Amino acid sequence: MLLDAIRSPKDLQGMKPQELEELAAELRQRILQTVSHNGGHLASNLGVVELTIALHRSFDFSRDQLIFDVGHQCYAHKLLTGRGEQFDTLRQYNGLTGFPKRDESPYDAFSTGHASTAISAAVGLCRARDAQGQDHHVVAVVGDGALTGGMCFEALNDAGSNELRLIVVLNDNGMSISRNVGAVSGYLTRMRAGKGWFDAKRVVSGALKRIPVAGDVLYRAFHRVKDSIRNIFVQDRLFDSLGFHYLGPVDGSDIRGLEHLFAKAKQLDEPVLIHVVTRKGSGYTQAEDHPSRLHGTPPFDVDTGKPLSKSAASMSAAAGDELLALAKEDRRVVAVTAAMTAGTGLLNFAYEMPDRLFDVGIAEEHAVTMAAGLAAGGMRPFVAIYDTFLQRGFDQVLHDVCLQHLPVCFLMDRAGLSEDGPTHHGIYGVSYLSQLPGIQVLCASSRAELRAMMRYALTQDGPVAIRYHKADCSGLPDHLQPPVYRPVWQCLRQGGDLAILGTGPILYEALRAAELLEEQDLHCAVYNASCVTPLDEETLCSLGAPMVTVEEGALRGGLGSLISLACQQKNIPGPVLPLGLAGTCMTQGSRECQLKAQGLDAASIARQILAWRSKQ
Amino acid sequence: MLLDAIRSPKDLQGMKPQELEELAAELRQRILQTVSHNGGHLASNLGVVELTIALHRSFDFSRDQLIFDVGHQCYAHKLLTGRGEQFDTLRQYNGLTGFPKRDESPYDAFSTGHASTAISAAVGLCRARDAQGQDHHVVAVVGDGALTGGMCFEALNDAGSNELRLIVVLNDNGMSISRNVGAVSGYLTRMRAGKGWFDAKRVVSGALKRIPVAGDVLYRAFHRVKDSIRNIFVQDRLFDSLGFHYLGPVDGSDIRGLEHLFAKAKQLDEPVLIHVVTRKGSGYTQAEDHPSRLHGTPPFDVDTGKPLSKSAASMSAAAGDELLALAKEDRRVVAVTAAMTAGTGLLNFAYEMPDRLFDVGIAEEHAVTMAAGLAAGGMRPFVAIYDTFLQRGFDQVLHDVCLQHLPVCFLMDRAGLSEDGPTHHGIYGVSYLSQLPGIQVLCASSRAELRAMMRYALTQDGPVAIRYHKADCSGLPDHLQPPVYRPVWQCLRQGGDLAILGTGPILYEALRAAELLEEQDLHCAVYNASCVTPLDEETLCSLGAPMVTVEEGALRGGLGSLISLACQQKNIPGPVLPLGLAGTCMTQGSRECQLKAQGLDAASIARQILAWRSKQ
Repeated sequence: MLLDAIRSPKDLQGMKPQELEELAAELRQRILQTVSHNGGHLASNLGVVELTIALHRSFDFSRDQLIFDVGHQCYAHKLLTGRGEQFDTLRQYNGLTGFPKRDESPYDAFSTGHASTAISAAVGLCRARDAQGQDHHVVAVVGDGALTGGMCFEALNDAGSNELRLIVVLNDNGMSISRNVGAVSGYLTRMRAGKGWFDAKRVVSGALKRIPVAGDVLYRAFHRVKDSIRNIFVQDRLFDSLGFHYLGPVDGSDIRGLEHLFAKAKQLDEPVLIHVVTRKGSGYTQAEDHPSRLHGTPPFDVDTGKPLSKSAASMSAAAGDELLALAKEDRRVVAVTAAMTAGTGLLNFAYEMPDRLFDVGIAEEHAVTMAAGLAAGGMRPFVAIYDTFLQRGFDQVLHDVCLQHLPVCFLMDRAGLSEDGPTHHGIYGVSYLSQLPGIQVLCASSRAELRAMMRYALTQDGPVAIRYHKADCSGLPDHLQPPVYRPVWQCLRQGGDLAILGTGPILYEALRAAELLEEQDLHCAVYNASCVTPLDEETLCSLGAPMVTVEEGALRGGLGSLISLACQQKNIPGPVLPLGLAGTCMTQGSRECQLKAQGLDAASIARQILAWRSKQ
Repeated sequence: MLLDAIRSPKDLQGMKPQELEELAAELRQRILQTVSHNGGHLASNLGVVELTIALHRSFDFSRDQLIFDVGHQCYAHKLLTGRGEQFDTLRQYNGLTGFPKRDESPYDAFSTGHASTAISAAVGLCRARDAQGQDHHVVAVVGDGALTGGMCFEALNDAGSNELRLIVVLNDNGMSISRNVGAVSGYLTRMRAGKGWFDAKRVVSGALKRIPVAGDVLYRAFHRVKDSIRNIFVQDRLFDSLGFHYLGPVDGSDIRGLEHLFAKAKQLDEPVLIHVVTRKGSGYTQAEDHPSRLHGTPPFDVDTGKPLSKSAASMSAAAGDELLALAKEDRRVVAVTAAMTAGTGLLNFAYEMPDRLFDVGIAEEHAVTMAAGLAAGGMRPFVAIYDTFLQRGFDQVLHDVCLQHLPVCFLMDRAGLSEDGPTHHGIYGVSYLSQLPGIQVLCASSRAELRAMMRYALTQDGPVAIRYHKADCSGLPDHLQPPVYRPVWQCLRQGGDLAILGTGPILYEALRAAELLEEQDLHCAVYNASCVTPLDEETLCSLGAPMVTVEEGALRGGLGSLISLACQQKNIPGPVLPLGLAGTCMTQGSRECQLKAQGLDAASIARQILAWRSKQ
């Protein structure tokens, strides 16, 4: 294997074209094998193999600095920078991370995870370089989907007008996680129509048509912007306007072509944009045909591209189905998302009611304020978004939604620990929302509860946030899932010695901990503290027992903290043992491993409760 | 007076050109008088008088919907929409707000305060209109400075590609709060060079030259982008590219010209951008000559334009001076700001070290991640930003700064209650930052403490946030202000009955409360809990007395909440009385009035402590 001989990117230098081609095939094979086994990001990584080789042959990233926007396309980069031997541990607990990470390798100049940050970071690195009289190159690789994020525009504007020596590589794969949205995408498409237009258009249209179920709808939306290609192409020079020297487009599988442009870019003393057209999933038919499904994937069968094990019942699907039902019942109901149509279970909604779903692309800030506008206009928007990505819209949730007390419902998917690790943990949602005025923060522990909460939200005249895991892992018995939601802490289990208050799927661990403690003759009640803000103070005051709070989230500002505060305010004696995530939470890997590491699995919870009791 | 006869915008309809001119003069006079008396935003309001008249004559905003971005330019709008009689109460406690507010008037379609939100909100209102089969117009008035905010780009992109019927009025006054930054500004400037270019260029250059002290520097920076005007003009069609029908430019003082374009825009069934060139401070020489100083102003003398009373010693100035001193001592120190150069006291810094100040325009997200890049490149960036505006960079503080534990120092000016009210209160800073991993959150109560904290931050290897008021209002005696900062809670006053823990300038109220309680024979110690995260647990554990926490910030997630949590975790008996801002805080006006209303002045604090003690 050629790959095994590569200890550092320097080993790429002497290789012949034929060898590079073989190496690319080996990289693809290795990525495919590992991801099919560990899960991870596939299509995007297969698409940038040649681009990554060319980058490492053209630059010396032991001096030069490379930033991958989002970062989930860094697998080939990891394999070429001395991390091949650990690659089997990708995304596993204590293993290699699935993203660039500054403390993992000197070749990772900046850690990434969320979209649209790379150009800003690169601008900072350029200024640090210039201030210190250094002369290395700074390269940011950015996908076309991320360009809809306003932050990219802010950074391009800053870099361009200050004439910073910076190289931005636009990795144009024709579609972001679900699809590109809006005029920026149209703009790139129009660019493709000019000189160097080769077969990108076909790839893009084809890829969009291949998205299952909602493909036709999305394709029609795409078609609209595509029609104006040739007319507008000549007038559109956005990168130019912003002060960037534009190079390209170049075929992302053409290593020689890429190296030619990189060489040219290195000689320019100004901001440069290199337009590279890649193909998601390139080299693996299943991924080329289903780039959306094989974007982020659990372990799968290489022959069929299908998941190895049946996944747990999906909370996302439940949310999507319920929202569609609500939309059919109530004409005011609309869905808003920010490039998470598929991830939040809205594909059926998009198919059945395309006019009532607004996917604004990777643009969370706009999504939140636009939803506030919808609500101010009399609609009932549900914003389907990942817990970690709503952080982008924090100011808008406060300023545009809460201060106006508008009835926007946030469907916060992927709450809790994420396999992807620190950048994707949905563990701050309770803390960052519960401080805001007038918003109700609910945590759903099962599909039935989630559906009931959505119906409840529609009856409220102010903002409601509903947080939930991707999968239904609470294991709650049916009779504990009332069809109508009331913001009251439900008693799931009786017990006179102490009360465990949990929220979300961690309730399952709490219930199991109570069973373990029962064996030690400690009788624990367990409550579903589903409404975190406002607290159910009536139940809280009535408990009359020591309390343990259990949450899969940050302790500071979280459930334990809110209950501790309320105890002081209401003169409730307590004591309270707050269990959750203290300070940093830098782990990744399976939820099971992470819960154990954080002391939040049933056995650890039980152990901590016993130790605490013995000290009282 | 013509103005007195106007009860609603309908009364504008029959007026003759001569009368409109008189009305404009009356509006200016009324605004000038009120702002010189109450303080407020002056230059921006004087600049849009004719624009506001033309808008209300061209549209019927009892049906059509008008959104002012930022909103501080809405005074003429308030005077024309039935709020003339209350206008004397502008910005006062229980008075008219200085911003559009949905629950103040049906003519305020959407509340604003922070920049760059209006187009997003307008997109939402358009979609709500279309979904309900209504046919009114939606108009967003946006300043050119706000266009650097990426959120505008996200919204323009969405509106343009979906061909929404929306009218955006670009209020191009040639400069934002301090200056326009970057290519967007250059783009507009280049536009002015084309057809219809009249005297805007002169106005812009003139206004920039007039900024005191740092004017020359800023002018040079501006000059650089201006030179390329004619070359690039033809190629630049950004609004076109984004799918907007461009109309203009039109002189913002020409009511007839404006009405002509509005009439045209109303007939178009697509997104329209109307480019209006206005002049900040128009009609009042002092404001035309000092638009930056008379942007937001305290009460002032109309003849000289100078403040009526000497303002309290400025924390902002202290921060700016100290940062300049640090930059001279340490080559790694650089300043980053987002259009707040003047407001955060950095004008001297900009003048003396222009190469080490990066003002990225209204672009907080980019500012934070760019600073993270600077830190990753070996620099020591200090991000000078208002507490309320850092909310925009919340995700970036977490994702780019904290997760990488980069040594970025946030100088969070305007922490605490704001005269401007809810949209500008800096009361969430402790809550939204202290939940994040590895960041130190400090609150400075005096200039000396602020300076010492900045030096301390430079010795730390991770992120530090320093929050402080605009004015030094703590009244701490000199001997209590140690020159070297240590993250330890300093005892400001001894007392054995209970301990009051305060942070920031509210300490002054706490000390006075302790004096009042002394008269009641209650002996209170007072501690400066300057480090809020991490807490000084050693001191906390050693107190051995009931505690009262006092903070000018949200209780949930704030100091009282963090101490309540720590008491449970560390088994500290307490009890704790947490005083601060519970739930909503919708007040505006003088800090004194607001503190009293929130029960946070000395007398209220003392009263609450006595009531609490009697219940123990």
